[in-house]
Amino acid sequence: MVMSEKLGYPLIALNFKVYLESIGENALRLAKIAEDVAREYGVSIMVAPPLLDLEKVVKEVDIPVFAQHVDPYSPGGHTGAIVVEDIKAVGAVGSIVNHSERRLLLADIGKILKRLRENGLLSLLCADTVETTRAGAALAPDILAVEPPELIGTGIPVSKAKPEIVVGAVEAVKKINPEVHVLCGAGISTGEDVAKAIELGTEGVLLSSAYVKAKDPRKVLKDMAEGALRSWEKKD
Amino acid sequence: MVMSEKLGYPLIALNFKVYLESIGENALRLAKIAEDVAREYGVSIMVAPPLLDLEKVVKEVDIPVFAQHVDPYSPGGHTGAIVVEDIKAVGAVGSIVNHSERRLLLADIGKILKRLRENGLLSLLCADTVETTRAGAALAPDILAVEPPELIGTGIPVSKAKPEIVVGAVEAVKKINPEVHVLCGAGISTGEDVAKAIELGTEGVLLSSAYVKAKDPRKVLKDMAEGALRSWEKKD
Amino acid sequence: MVMSEKLGYPLIALNFKVYLESIGENALRLAKIAEDVAREYGVSIMVAPPLLDLEKVVKEVDIPVFAQHVDPYSPGGHTGAIVVEDIKAVGAVGSIVNHSERRLLLADIGKILKRLRENGLLSLLCADTVETTRAGAALAPDILAVEPPELIGTGIPVSKAKPEIVVGAVEAVKKINPEVHVLCGAGISTGEDVAKAIELGTEGVLLSSAYVKAKDPRKVLKDMAEGALRSWEKKD
Amino acid sequence: MVMSEKLGYPLIALNFKVYLESIGENALRLAKIAEDVAREYGVSIMVAPPLLDLEKVVKEVDIPVFAQHVDPYSPGGHTGAIVVEDIKAVGAVGSIVNHSERRLLLADIGKILKRLRENGLLSLLCADTVETTRAGAALAPDILAVEPPELIGTGIPVSKAKPEIVVGAVEAVKKINPEVHVLCGAGISTGEDVAKAIELGTEGVLLSSAYVKAKDPRKVLKDMAEGALRSWEKKD
Repeated sequence: MVMSEKLGYPLIALNFKVYLESIGENALRLAKIAEDVAREYGVSIMVAPPLLDLEKVVKEVDIPVFAQHVDPYSPGGHTGAIVVEDIKAVGAVGSIVNHSERRLLLADIGKILKRLRENGLLSLLCADTVETTRAGAALAPDILAVEPPELIGTGIPVSKAKPEIVVGAVEAVKKINPEVHVLCGAGISTGEDVAKAIELGTEGVLLSSAYVKAKDPRKVLKDMAEGALRSWEKKD
Repeated sequence: MVMSEKLGYPLIALNFKVYLESIGENALRLAKIAEDVAREYGVSIMVAPPLLDLEKVVKEVDIPVFAQHVDPYSPGGHTGAIVVEDIKAVGAVGSIVNHSERRLLLADIGKILKRLRENGLLSLLCADTVETTRAGAALAPDILAVEPPELIGTGIPVSKAKPEIVVGAVEAVKKINPEVHVLCGAGISTGEDVAKAIELGTEGVLLSSAYVKAKDPRKVLKDMAEGALRSWEKKD
Repeated sequence: MVMSEKLGYPLIALNFKVYLESIGENALRLAKIAEDVAREYGVSIMVAPPLLDLEKVVKEVDIPVFAQHVDPYSPGGHTGAIVVEDIKAVGAVGSIVNHSERRLLLADIGKILKRLRENGLLSLLCADTVETTRAGAALAPDILAVEPPELIGTGIPVSKAKPEIVVGAVEAVKKINPEVHVLCGAGISTGEDVAKAIELGTEGVLLSSAYVKAKDPRKVLKDMAEGALRSWEKKD
Repeated sequence: MVMSEKLGYPLIALNFKVYLESIGENALRLAKIAEDVAREYGVSIMVAPPLLDLEKVVKEVDIPVFAQHVDPYSPGGHTGAIVVEDIKAVGAVGSIVNHSERRLLLADIGKILKRLRENGLLSLLCADTVETTRAGAALAPDILAVEPPELIGTGIPVSKAKPEIVVGAVEAVKKINPEVHVLCGAGISTGEDVAKAIELGTEGVLLSSAYVKAKDPRKVLKDMAEGALRSWEKKD
């Protein structure tokens, strides 16, 4: 297991989205808790703060930081765009791509993964079904998270509600491109959900509201770190 | 080789787009020429007229007719949408999906291919690179056309300018899903271009302006039909 | 009051959307009922069938037929697009623009209204608030329908639930561009709703599901025609 | 005339876009030059750095800083979005809205302007024609910049090439909403272009590449500041 700025597995990936609880100084607060828990448990935790708060978080914590989104463009006349080169310039190590709340064109996903790779950054590609997971794996992202959008934010964990999607995704990826790391997301709220996700063959989870909107985010994340480690050890 | 409403191979797929030369009654004119040539040469020709002219063409010709685009929605409250069920209702046999002039979200491509399949219609999926062709193949369309967008409408045939993309696409598809039929497009203008495309391993071509905007579309299409047959016979 | 292919006021505008009840031959069925009721009551009724069924409806009924959507492009290489020139070629007299289910860029709305005008076709622009109604009026569409999207399909009529939006829209339009005809939509289900809409200062209504999905669409439409006439006469 | 964090007129608005010359530390370099020139000439200069570099610039310079883009959403589950509340949290004073490289839906522009206003932030709305300028003015932004997209980045100043658009925009805005400040953009490269823009009735300019990609941005900006002051004084 690796910590600090290098990603390792099992991986708990925290997408902060843009909740009142995660923008501005709150991004820093949530990132520091994640850093503490990562250190305490020796488990790999990645954070994706709001884009406007990305650099601030990178400067203050020593765990891997991702952008939540990146555009397919090269640097140039693209007002309001997020370019790979700027993500690198501010010190983040990768980007989420094609989150269900920011779906992308297939052609653009191809361009983005290529541009991230060429710039030495990591990609975490999201997909919604076994079919699109298979398509996604063919594009060779570093990490692929399968998230049925209908479960996002519900508290009903995909690992329990639709284990067949998780297992199907893991198998599909293995067949197409075994180097891609598979996570699952949507409804992941507890250490048990994380453990179950790993039992089903993933190498971790992607989650948001269960951490960001928790009354006690530290407690929630500790529980998840424990679940991850418990399940990961059984695996070996 | 099959003619009439069933698709066969080698296939010449004619995307009419929405040129002045292809809208309204011109859609019918161009479709009838295609029907004549298909009959004369015994080669499979498919036409994709403008959406507003789709039903009229279906009613008047006896070759396979595709829609140029379809949306991912089920029938319902979707003003201005094109739904699979209506494509079927007006008698077309399939749809182009994700043309470079109408790029789609990966998640929507997944939904559209599934909806076409469930309704017994064919899909002709477009992709722009070897990577997205590979991703596309993983989604199991009936036909996959690789078209580098920078060559579309140029008259510089992809089969000559970028044969490595065509060969790469054919190989990628064979590996991922050998049941998918591969076409190539972009810059295809002559019978020789068609012949070359088939030599490179495709089962036909997708083209538009070279036919639609030709002074003598019949002559152009006859030349292509001859090129297709010549090259196809060598193959066997 | 005008009937037949020319639009008149009060106007009942029927957006068929793409329901199972409105695609294919159903588009024709619903359009013919609308024609009957328009004739019987001498009230102006416009229909907007699914795009794939547009020409068929135009050919069979003698009331004004609109497209549900049109793209900003000139005829050309735009696969899957709906161009103004083709709407005209198949015989429709105008298009809905910017429906809440098919929102458009402000810049594209500008282009579309200009293109419709230059081609002698009518525009029915949709807006969602008093502010965007005011902006819409500045673009000089022929007709402007204000529809709060949160009420669409609910059966809760905007004319009762949010009369201030209807009144505000009518006033805003009068101030900016008094030649624009104002309709209101969202939740319009009965003759009483239509009457109320006209009392609030509009010249008619835009509706969909209350007609399309009615058990007895003829009865619903007759009730609306009566409501329109009753309220319109009081106005004079 | 006002300087420092409050906007004043004449205004030189600098959109950094995401050029190699404007991302990362370059955003800071360009912003500091702008601050120097604003101070030296007592002219109001606003900068809009890349979104990822926004907070860094806000922290280091004492001139008004805008975001290049903002989404219509309230804080919440919107991965990759830019929300008004976070623009405020990092200390920027407003946002460009609907730049020609980031066109927005009319309905979203309405929401964004409302959200900026409610949060005490300024809006700089872009429009491309006299018609959309008129529509834009009806939405009551603080500033409205008319920029014919075909001239952006060409070095052919709109103030010379299409003075009728600038004059038409100024008149249209005065008629609809005289409180809106009008800028013009596209092709603005020299002090003379700025002077001409103000002579035509605007209160300043919006520009990008002429500054960002200049060999000597300081010299370019000084020339513009002089042009602005020269023309502004004549006006009084």
